[in-house]
Amino acid sequence: MEQKKAEVIVVGGGFAGLNVVKGLKSAPVLVTLVDKHNYHLFQPLLYQVATAVLSPDNIAAPIRKVLRGQKNATVGLAEMVGVDLNRKVVIGQRGEKKYDYLVLATGVEGSYFGHDEFKPFAPGLKSLDDAVEIRRRILLAFEEAEFEADEASRRGKLTFVVVGGGPTGVELAGAIVETATQTLPSEFRHVDTRTARVILVEGGDSLLKAMPQGMGKRAQRDLEAMGVEMRLGSYVTSVDADGVMVGDERVPAENVLWAAGVRGTPIAKTLGVELDHIGRVKVAPDLSVPGHPEVFVVGDAAHAVDAVTGQPVPGVAQGAIQMGRFVADIIRREVEGADPKDRPTFNYYDKGSMATISRGRAVASIKGRTLGGFLGWLAWGLIHLMFLVGFRTKAMVMFEWVWNYLAHERGARIITGDPRTKIKEIRGAKMYDRR
Amino acid sequence: MEQKKAEVIVVGGGFAGLNVVKGLKSAPVLVTLVDKHNYHLFQPLLYQVATAVLSPDNIAAPIRKVLRGQKNATVGLAEMVGVDLNRKVVIGQRGEKKYDYLVLATGVEGSYFGHDEFKPFAPGLKSLDDAVEIRRRILLAFEEAEFEADEASRRGKLTFVVVGGGPTGVELAGAIVETATQTLPSEFRHVDTRTARVILVEGGDSLLKAMPQGMGKRAQRDLEAMGVEMRLGSYVTSVDADGVMVGDERVPAENVLWAAGVRGTPIAKTLGVELDHIGRVKVAPDLSVPGHPEVFVVGDAAHAVDAVTGQPVPGVAQGAIQMGRFVADIIRREVEGADPKDRPTFNYYDKGSMATISRGRAVASIKGRTLGGFLGWLAWGLIHLMFLVGFRTKAMVMFEWVWNYLAHERGARIITGDPRTKIKEIRGAKMYDRR
Repeated sequence: MEQKKAEVIVVGGGFAGLNVVKGLKSAPVLVTLVDKHNYHLFQPLLYQVATAVLSPDNIAAPIRKVLRGQKNATVGLAEMVGVDLNRKVVIGQRGEKKYDYLVLATGVEGSYFGHDEFKPFAPGLKSLDDAVEIRRRILLAFEEAEFEADEASRRGKLTFVVVGGGPTGVELAGAIVETATQTLPSEFRHVDTRTARVILVEGGDSLLKAMPQGMGKRAQRDLEAMGVEMRLGSYVTSVDADGVMVGDERVPAENVLWAAGVRGTPIAKTLGVELDHIGRVKVAPDLSVPGHPEVFVVGDAAHAVDAVTGQPVPGVAQGAIQMGRFVADIIRREVEGADPKDRPTFNYYDKGSMATISRGRAVASIKGRTLGGFLGWLAWGLIHLMFLVGFRTKAMVMFEWVWNYLAHERGARIITGDPRTKIKEIRGAKMYDRR
Repeated sequence: MEQKKAEVIVVGGGFAGLNVVKGLKSAPVLVTLVDKHNYHLFQPLLYQVATAVLSPDNIAAPIRKVLRGQKNATVGLAEMVGVDLNRKVVIGQRGEKKYDYLVLATGVEGSYFGHDEFKPFAPGLKSLDDAVEIRRRILLAFEEAEFEADEASRRGKLTFVVVGGGPTGVELAGAIVETATQTLPSEFRHVDTRTARVILVEGGDSLLKAMPQGMGKRAQRDLEAMGVEMRLGSYVTSVDADGVMVGDERVPAENVLWAAGVRGTPIAKTLGVELDHIGRVKVAPDLSVPGHPEVFVVGDAAHAVDAVTGQPVPGVAQGAIQMGRFVADIIRREVEGADPKDRPTFNYYDKGSMATISRGRAVASIKGRTLGGFLGWLAWGLIHLMFLVGFRTKAMVMFEWVWNYLAHERGARIITGDPRTKIKEIRGAKMYDRR
């Protein structure tokens, strides 16, 4: 009789989780991937959904489809809420399931640094639903401004404050300026969309702090040339429906986007092990939970330190992919008989960093060299296309990019959701007063 | 000094309204198109969004973009709630606006024949949000069934009842069978998706009643060959979360889709003129509101009768397009000096009817000839592509269709919306019991 196969449960179908499952393709295990969504999200392009270049479907691949050829893999749609390390079970909302190996790949969520009351006025960009909500707000802002008779109110509607100078903040700021200056001007009759203000607020003294220094300077120069106003060394201390406080300065702005911080997900706390100050699990050099060699944490959910350099592994797609493959290797070797005492330690291989600024312009750092402008953008585009899951998605995204590049057009400019909500949100604009 | 230009207000940016505006391009008028959405929806392909072949963005063109080259046109995003014929104003939620000419092109909404309590259990397919909700329910049904241990409950989750045998019902039924038998089987481990039941309920004695007789028979034969169960001459008398009553028969089914009836929109009632039994405005032979030559109703919102044949104009895209152009011509001629007493009467030119059944199969009736099978499908595809607005959209839809045809794949299979709602909706399935 065949020996019972080891049960591997992977929670989370992002880059890290998906690469754990794929890495176990030929291993004698039963692997279950559970995610609260039915799709793998290509997060690096999420800002392009938020700014109406791509459709949600362009960057979301159904997990079942990605794994349909892998016979030892089962996919489940559910949200996991806890782990019991002693009983070796992971707990969902309607039951629990035993594991032999558990891999947590639950990522991070947006953090308002203790000010969750900002959230309704300053949506973050972590999920596809977030992106659609931001797209709705950006597009509605121009619709509202078109029929707003009051000058001050119109200024507020056309002011966008992006909080956070990391890649997401940089990319959002650039894309909003592009929308206002290139895509929309010819479509409005009363308002000049090019007068929109975009303000980028960053607490540190430069942009893209996690990337090599030249990149932040280059991004800042490019964004300033496009008209983005910089507030470096500044913090947002309050947000409401009509504006924000940036330090001591009141900025009237009806559109605030939050790209400023992350924190671990609630399930990490249920492990009962040491977390870092933002709630990520401090993992051992083999990415396992200290004292529990059968439990791993990978991707953004992990606070991992490179065993050679002593540097923290950055929260980027490459880190997640490499951690996922690394853990899959460990599990595969051990179910095939390797001694758990001989585990390797994780080293991060830095392939480079990049952030896009606008159509035809990006900054990239590859092996110590900083690329900017069109060359940076080409490198950025090619590498992102390479990592997109599935041929169909690649082709669609390439088509949208070429279209965007040649026609200055954004392909996905629809406002979805209940129309009554929209009407309600067109606060105070006097719609029929202008002519 | 220049004479004040006539103000034309068009309410609704569907086929009818958009064609009114376009037809006034060179006329000396100011035309304002107001819609509650920011996009023109290509309604004939809505069922393809509901069944995950196309993305919402594929069939929705921003109205501003469509009209950006038309300098005399202004676009507004707002929901109009009433008309005051005596004061010549149209009333929105935050104000009113005077018109010289008013064109109502507000379409129809779904009707439950006085049973609005069915709605939560049996969504209709009139808007893009409806389509996304139906897509969510269809995809979730299979996700739930995969982990449902109870046989009877699993049957209910895999039973789809489509109410209404018009084009929408026929197209939904065919597309659901295709999804279950061609797209999904290889992706599920526990459940055989091919066992899904699709039941089409129609009160009349044949499908596609509004189309030439041969088409309904052909569609019925094709759908039955695919495994769709027909309930002709039957009515749905109740719907709840677990099933429907079809006549005296209780059918356990967790998925009920409503494609059975339409009614006029509430704004039509505020005119205070005669409506037909489903709430459409009975218009004069020139499509104006009797007694108010400056007010027209076009498209599905109108109960119009062909002046030559005496037949009612069918509620299809061609009818709406022709009515829109006809009214634009009248307005243009009169602002240029023509006598309102010399108005022409509207004649509908029937270019044919069509409905698709499945990948590579459709029924079409063109000039009295009925086409079926692959030839019908090619005709259907070409004609729909022709009428899609914008090159980009055409190219994307063609790409998705070719992909769907060759790979049996559906390109837009994501479940959106709040994940907590989803989890709640996975009613009673015992997720971890099966292995």
